[in-house]
Amino acid sequence: MNGADALITTLADNGVTACFANPGTSEMQFVSALDREPRMRSILCLFEGVATGAADGYGRIAGKPACTLLHLGPGYANGAANLHNARRAFTPIVNVVGDHATYHRDFDAPLNSDIAALAAPNSLWVKSAECADSVGPLAAEAITAAYGTPGGNACLILPADAAWNAASVHGGVAEIPAPAAPDAETVAAVAHAVKAAKAPVLLLGSGACREDGIAAAGRLAALGVRVLTDTFTARQARGEGRFRPDKLPYFGEQALKELDGADLMVLVATERPVAFFAYPDRPSVLVPEHCGLETLCGREVDAAAALNALADALEAPAAGPAEPYAPPPAPAGKLDAWAIGASIARHMPADTVISDDAVTAGLPIFTQTRAARAHDWLSLTGGAIGQGIPLAIGAAVARPDAKVLALTGDGAGMYTVQGLWTIAREQLDVVVVVFANHVYRILGIELSRTGAGAAGPAASKLLDIGDPRIDWVAVSQGMGVPAQRVDTAEAFDEAFAQAMAAKGPRLIEAAL
Amino acid sequence: MNGADALITTLADNGVTACFANPGTSEMQFVSALDREPRMRSILCLFEGVATGAADGYGRIAGKPACTLLHLGPGYANGAANLHNARRAFTPIVNVVGDHATYHRDFDAPLNSDIAALAAPNSLWVKSAECADSVGPLAAEAITAAYGTPGGNACLILPADAAWNAASVHGGVAEIPAPAAPDAETVAAVAHAVKAAKAPVLLLGSGACREDGIAAAGRLAALGVRVLTDTFTARQARGEGRFRPDKLPYFGEQALKELDGADLMVLVATERPVAFFAYPDRPSVLVPEHCGLETLCGREVDAAAALNALADALEAPAAGPAEPYAPPPAPAGKLDAWAIGASIARHMPADTVISDDAVTAGLPIFTQTRAARAHDWLSLTGGAIGQGIPLAIGAAVARPDAKVLALTGDGAGMYTVQGLWTIAREQLDVVVVVFANHVYRILGIELSRTGAGAAGPAASKLLDIGDPRIDWVAVSQGMGVPAQRVDTAEAFDEAFAQAMAAKGPRLIEAAL
Repeated sequence: MNGADALITTLADNGVTACFANPGTSEMQFVSALDREPRMRSILCLFEGVATGAADGYGRIAGKPACTLLHLGPGYANGAANLHNARRAFTPIVNVVGDHATYHRDFDAPLNSDIAALAAPNSLWVKSAECADSVGPLAAEAITAAYGTPGGNACLILPADAAWNAASVHGGVAEIPAPAAPDAETVAAVAHAVKAAKAPVLLLGSGACREDGIAAAGRLAALGVRVLTDTFTARQARGEGRFRPDKLPYFGEQALKELDGADLMVLVATERPVAFFAYPDRPSVLVPEHCGLETLCGREVDAAAALNALADALEAPAAGPAEPYAPPPAPAGKLDAWAIGASIARHMPADTVISDDAVTAGLPIFTQTRAARAHDWLSLTGGAIGQGIPLAIGAAVARPDAKVLALTGDGAGMYTVQGLWTIAREQLDVVVVVFANHVYRILGIELSRTGAGAAGPAASKLLDIGDPRIDWVAVSQGMGVPAQRVDTAEAFDEAFAQAMAAKGPRLIEAAL
Repeated sequence: MNGADALITTLADNGVTACFANPGTSEMQFVSALDREPRMRSILCLFEGVATGAADGYGRIAGKPACTLLHLGPGYANGAANLHNARRAFTPIVNVVGDHATYHRDFDAPLNSDIAALAAPNSLWVKSAECADSVGPLAAEAITAAYGTPGGNACLILPADAAWNAASVHGGVAEIPAPAAPDAETVAAVAHAVKAAKAPVLLLGSGACREDGIAAAGRLAALGVRVLTDTFTARQARGEGRFRPDKLPYFGEQALKELDGADLMVLVATERPVAFFAYPDRPSVLVPEHCGLETLCGREVDAAAALNALADALEAPAAGPAEPYAPPPAPAGKLDAWAIGASIARHMPADTVISDDAVTAGLPIFTQTRAARAHDWLSLTGGAIGQGIPLAIGAAVARPDAKVLALTGDGAGMYTVQGLWTIAREQLDVVVVVFANHVYRILGIELSRTGAGAAGPAASKLLDIGDPRIDWVAVSQGMGVPAQRVDTAEAFDEAFAQAMAAKGPRLIEAAL
């Protein structure tokens, strides 16, 4: 057993059995050790941003960490944007970052850099295994750290010599921290405040949006409490049979309008809402002026338990309202996000996972699918586009029996377009829908909101991605994913129905 | 004038007139200000790694910085791997990274992160403009910092409010530091040591490999001094009419064999050579045991002047040997890197710029083009693959009259494949040659060298990228770059000759 064996055994012993990888020379011992640990499934990604995004998707669905395998500082950096998103989703991930042999670092060879410094901003735990016998125990520590509470990404730096030298120990069983129980006094105080309020609003963060949290929030809705979720949540249980909270709008002024009249906001596993961006003369904090603020629980607490405790204290019914299955009628004519959302709601089977990186198209689809079959919706939690395709990869690996739907803008899709190859390679049951509007549409909206006025020729050139037009069918097929282009609502509906009926990789370019 | 205007005016006043950009909401003021500054050429890249790699290529060829425009921490992180390469190339670059408005940061909105911490490992200067009136002066400071000596990448963080608020000053003319003059005493001492040595070797770093440095090194070669360059240099003047030094081999044992018998190594704008990676039981330092070590000059010194001073002290002739134009004969039969190198040497016009991200194919091409027309060769200085296509973009923008050739492995090419779109968008005169061997070939070699043994099924799966095979013609055409696939030496020779005779974007998939 060498250090790499100790690492992989420790990971597998603790249920970390998926590895999204793009290795290099310094990771060859890890790669070789994979041949000796059949429990670990390794999945090659042609760019590290695909690997880290996939690990995020896996963690959100599996509820346990995957590991990534990354090549020194540059490999980590390539994956850092999707780790930023993962950090904001509180997803457990164990990043294994290969490094030069410990004695080789001081020579500052070309690939040398300060990996720990690069990793620090996105990691809740960073350590380097300086000898083979520390690899296993540190792997166990990394797993514990990744689980949270709440979860996040841990970074284990693995010098080449720590991997290739003989190891005498592995890490054993890692402690998996349990979320804290709700605080009874806080629950009682919040119950009191809710009773006293005329128009209380509950705001749910990611930790409160899984099936149990949504169900518990539904009980409070049955009492007339308004329930909203954060604009972007890691994973939200939605559709048939579930309670449907509203989503806090993205634009601050719309959010404040939505909250107008609320006299109490109760935060559940989240913090006081703020605008995604600042704009001249618009507020940063999205709490109405005379609205009180209470926190039912922080992110470290079992939010479903807290919500149920609050519901019990308020003598709420055992269950709240449940969405029926009521898809919109078949769309016709012009192809737009509303029409596409209707088709999705009509055809997607129960237990579909939706990975949303559709930017401006996201909200119409979200709205249209509110009464679709039961599904999970994964949002872009950190705002770093290029998450849609990678997240879908990880979700599909975590739940091979489910349909996974990646919704991506064309601009966002190009960020991690290499992910299509991994979908083909692994023959994942992923359908990618590209919203090909040939423009960074959100930026056209944001330009004027930031007070920058209308776009002249130079500015327009930085918002337009339509010259040349990207042929998504060619790009997708070139990476092994069968694809088609549709430009009417009817054609999309038919293509999407077919994709849902079949199994395996598929891309639909929605020409908007 | 707002802060964004002050920034762009300061940049343009100092000759920074190319901006490789992928902006977001927080950069909209900068985007808008582009309409008011016609001197600035902005070039949209669909991923930040393309933007930073292009800025590196621009800086290497133009000898002055381009700027990038990046979107907060994740945008910077996406560009960090190619900035790692740029750091190792000592390329002047001014990275402008948009940030939340200063007063908005503390609310920790989803895109918030510690940009300065992310940028620190790759930057020689990081500052944030906390108010509009600091933007211009800090831009001038960033330009001075980027120039060096030696150059590097500077990171100016631009909060949204510093960009949109009114500014009363811009930055004026930045100081451009001149490289230090060679130290006469050191030159005399090194001359003495060279005279005393039986087998002296000169090792040239990036700063000594431009046309003037290579010419000066040639004078010393005329005296019988062995001249080598670092394995990877930022930009090397080569081909017809130039002196041809040898390259220090990549693998340590080959490097030591090459240096066998040398009793003096003189370092010119570089440091003692070390192995690219550590391997069990192989040395890290690539200096033979009884070889003396002298430093003619550090990277802060005008290396050509130092070499000429040394040549004068040794009474070398005014000029060294010059390579004739002597391309290899037309290749025939099996298509491999040697055949491709022959075609490149035969057909590429004078003043071509070659961006090399060809990994295992790079050395054969380098060897075959030693007596080609005069050209510049840009190497992968930092080992972070995915540089080839982006670097070519920047080189083509810096020198629109030259042919630019991007040599890329298929694995490396997929990293920043989005760069093809920018080549098409800007109609750059770039020919991309993809070495499609469907495998991370270097890793197959490295696996056994690290003592990891032969690859079993799981390990092999992480080295092989041939399932599915990437259809580079489809991918390239899908992004707007005309492409063809060739699989014989004759077909490549013909395709390459045609590409050299034509102008504009082109991709050739060399099916190996």
